[in-house]
Amino acid sequence: MKYSKTDDTICAIATGGETSAIAIIRISGKNAIKITNKIFSKNLLNVKSHTIHFGDIKIKNEIIDEVLVSVFKEKKSYTGEETTEISCHGSNYIQHKILQELIKKGCRTADPGEFTIRAFKNGKIDLSQAESIADLIASKSKTEQQIAIKQLKGGISNKLQDLRKRLIDFASLIELELDFAEEDVEFADRKEFRDLLKEIKHELTTLTASFALGNAIKNGIPVTIIGPPNVGKSTLLNVLLEEEKAIVSEIAGTTRDAIEDKIIINGLTFRFIDTAGIRDTDDKIENIGIRKTFEKAKESDIILYLIDNSKDIKIQIKELEKVKEESNATCITVINKIDLNNKKRIPEAIYLSAKENIGINTLKQKLTDLSQYNELSNKETIITNIRHYEELTLTKHEINIIIEGLKNNVSGDFLAVNIRQALLHLGNITGEITNDTLLKNIFSKFCIGK
Amino acid sequence: MKYSKTDDTICAIATGGETSAIAIIRISGKNAIKITNKIFSKNLLNVKSHTIHFGDIKIKNEIIDEVLVSVFKEKKSYTGEETTEISCHGSNYIQHKILQELIKKGCRTADPGEFTIRAFKNGKIDLSQAESIADLIASKSKTEQQIAIKQLKGGISNKLQDLRKRLIDFASLIELELDFAEEDVEFADRKEFRDLLKEIKHELTTLTASFALGNAIKNGIPVTIIGPPNVGKSTLLNVLLEEEKAIVSEIAGTTRDAIEDKIIINGLTFRFIDTAGIRDTDDKIENIGIRKTFEKAKESDIILYLIDNSKDIKIQIKELEKVKEESNATCITVINKIDLNNKKRIPEAIYLSAKENIGINTLKQKLTDLSQYNELSNKETIITNIRHYEELTLTKHEINIIIEGLKNNVSGDFLAVNIRQALLHLGNITGEITNDTLLKNIFSKFCIGK
Repeated sequence: MKYSKTDDTICAIATGGETSAIAIIRISGKNAIKITNKIFSKNLLNVKSHTIHFGDIKIKNEIIDEVLVSVFKEKKSYTGEETTEISCHGSNYIQHKILQELIKKGCRTADPGEFTIRAFKNGKIDLSQAESIADLIASKSKTEQQIAIKQLKGGISNKLQDLRKRLIDFASLIELELDFAEEDVEFADRKEFRDLLKEIKHELTTLTASFALGNAIKNGIPVTIIGPPNVGKSTLLNVLLEEEKAIVSEIAGTTRDAIEDKIIINGLTFRFIDTAGIRDTDDKIENIGIRKTFEKAKESDIILYLIDNSKDIKIQIKELEKVKEESNATCITVINKIDLNNKKRIPEAIYLSAKENIGINTLKQKLTDLSQYNELSNKETIITNIRHYEELTLTKHEINIIIEGLKNNVSGDFLAVNIRQALLHLGNITGEITNDTLLKNIFSKFCIGK
Repeated sequence: MKYSKTDDTICAIATGGETSAIAIIRISGKNAIKITNKIFSKNLLNVKSHTIHFGDIKIKNEIIDEVLVSVFKEKKSYTGEETTEISCHGSNYIQHKILQELIKKGCRTADPGEFTIRAFKNGKIDLSQAESIADLIASKSKTEQQIAIKQLKGGISNKLQDLRKRLIDFASLIELELDFAEEDVEFADRKEFRDLLKEIKHELTTLTASFALGNAIKNGIPVTIIGPPNVGKSTLLNVLLEEEKAIVSEIAGTTRDAIEDKIIINGLTFRFIDTAGIRDTDDKIENIGIRKTFEKAKESDIILYLIDNSKDIKIQIKELEKVKEESNATCITVINKIDLNNKKRIPEAIYLSAKENIGINTLKQKLTDLSQYNELSNKETIITNIRHYEELTLTKHEINIIIEGLKNNVSGDFLAVNIRQALLHLGNITGEITNDTLLKNIFSKFCIGK
């Protein structure tokens, strides 16, 4: 299978492939320099690593382009192999012409993520770090980027590898006991072992618990806006959207995602869910709409409950109580239209005027605070990858069996089976154990050229 | 005006800006290294030119990305200024975050083509070379790329600068004569001067004549396909399209232009114009369609006249003669459906079967040969830029006046005026004389980041 093949030299356009000022063609493998040298006007065979060379790409006597070639020697490159990067003019024709010529001279086109696969195979990064690179490239907000870069820097890997190493030590002792089964010795201190298992379990619980948040961050934290008709739900949403647009368009070329009502606030993506206005009514059809609003409220992490300051607040608070009963989401009470009235204030509610753009920043801060990310971000590792979540859950399952087994004085050979399983699952995350199907699954989602 | 400002440090995303494996952010100006250094984890202040440095982009204590920074010292860079290039992960968020931070640290965003303007202002390239870079990036076929790279390598510049230099020498002598007007001396040998003018005129004629071809190459050489209904015009077009598609899709990620019926054959772009089938008819409306076909045939460089081999060829040839009379285009007679019949052959016609894919390569070769480019390409410089064409035409106009003047023994002070005008127009091409409006006009069409 291709994913196992690392003895050939691969090439790919690593930039978008479309017309642009510059395009980068990346070549990696044992003949990277030799092949690049065949189409380059200067001799690259004896240059130092991490140097840049200006010259022409030449095919026979035809000059294709003036380019810069960057040279990375084996072990010092991203892939851990000899690598070159050709920085050419971003003409579609030129990019593909150079690529075609590289193929003629002995390269083959890289599969998605194949440069990263090689980095993984050559021990430059582990599997979870490799996955973080795809997350990093896909990141659209500060929080996504921060989670991904932490994972790239070894956030999960270091944590898991430490636990795994200590579990392996115990596994060896338990396996050793099996060899001396007749003599009824205990090499592995059961108290110490129980402590380690407890520690592992705690860690696994924290990590798996972080997945809900991690997932929300990746897909946008769901926020349902609820309130009576004409309370100003759309106006509020527009104000939030508007402000964000203004920030984004400071830089030329930035475009907002087309997905409606996804808003990045303080670097976090929120997914706003609009609902029908709710009120006490006997109308059957209207009640179906209100029913749906409650359903949506259940799915979301946060509810923005809007109250109209110009109307009777007591009745509206009563409705709010119903919503709170039905949902586990955190509820923010927002009193809108403060420009219209100046009643006695309810503590803890946020007072604003969507129309007059008053109090919006307070709401934004509240949303960010409630998303829990800020507290977690600096201390904890957050799982965003479902594969990791599954492997962690499976590990936890095995650890629970081991803990139970120890309680019931189950014999070492039974324990050993579950320890091996736990190690297997932990190892799957960082890629100590892999197979081609898994790799294909992970890397097929990568960009070409990465 | 901005185009004159070169004392600040500019930055831009030089790759497409969209999500991709790698993105390049380019920084140029006197503080390029200093500013990059402020957000980079390693010290770049004392590194050598043309070296690459791996490290983190850091904003306060937050890591934004793992990147490679390339450093180019003043005079050795594209712009002729101190330059850095940050190769980051191609996340939209990360690219803009880094750009934003560079702006905070003292860069401003570059205008389209501003890096190239600086290269021009710093004497790294002349104006016609600068223009060739935009052509190079826009090139979609081998021929376009070849014309652009030749211009970049100084094709036009060298030619014009030589002529201009010699004209300047004569201008000085003529101007000198004016100082000694009373004494009636001739410093400038009139015979030599006439020879030079003749040579310049010849060169200008060749160059301006090449523009028609250059323009056709840029926009696609127009080819009208004409023939009776059901002769197989669409089948032929499809066969030509199909083959090309197959070649293009050899390389993953290549996409054909959406523009219908533009086909690249042997590196040349042909623009195929489909027409209504023609035949002798009294139907008024049909005759309008046929009229249009003749109109289109007039506009095109080449006519492919398709004849149905399974029908009476004599009648069809008669129609062909009418077309030939009406148009100046080169006409290729194509006998289609040779699979259906095996009649006596007309010399010079191309026999093929579009359906069975027989004889298509012969047709392709004929098209390429007729386009005249092959003969010209290796010897001549081809003008593709309308600005150059205009300046050359204006120069030629002045040269003609000078030649006439010499014939009529016009006095030196009159000659001097026209010589100065001729020099001005020649100088405009390579940018010896420029102004901000001209520069803005040229560079506003550039990519950002180039």
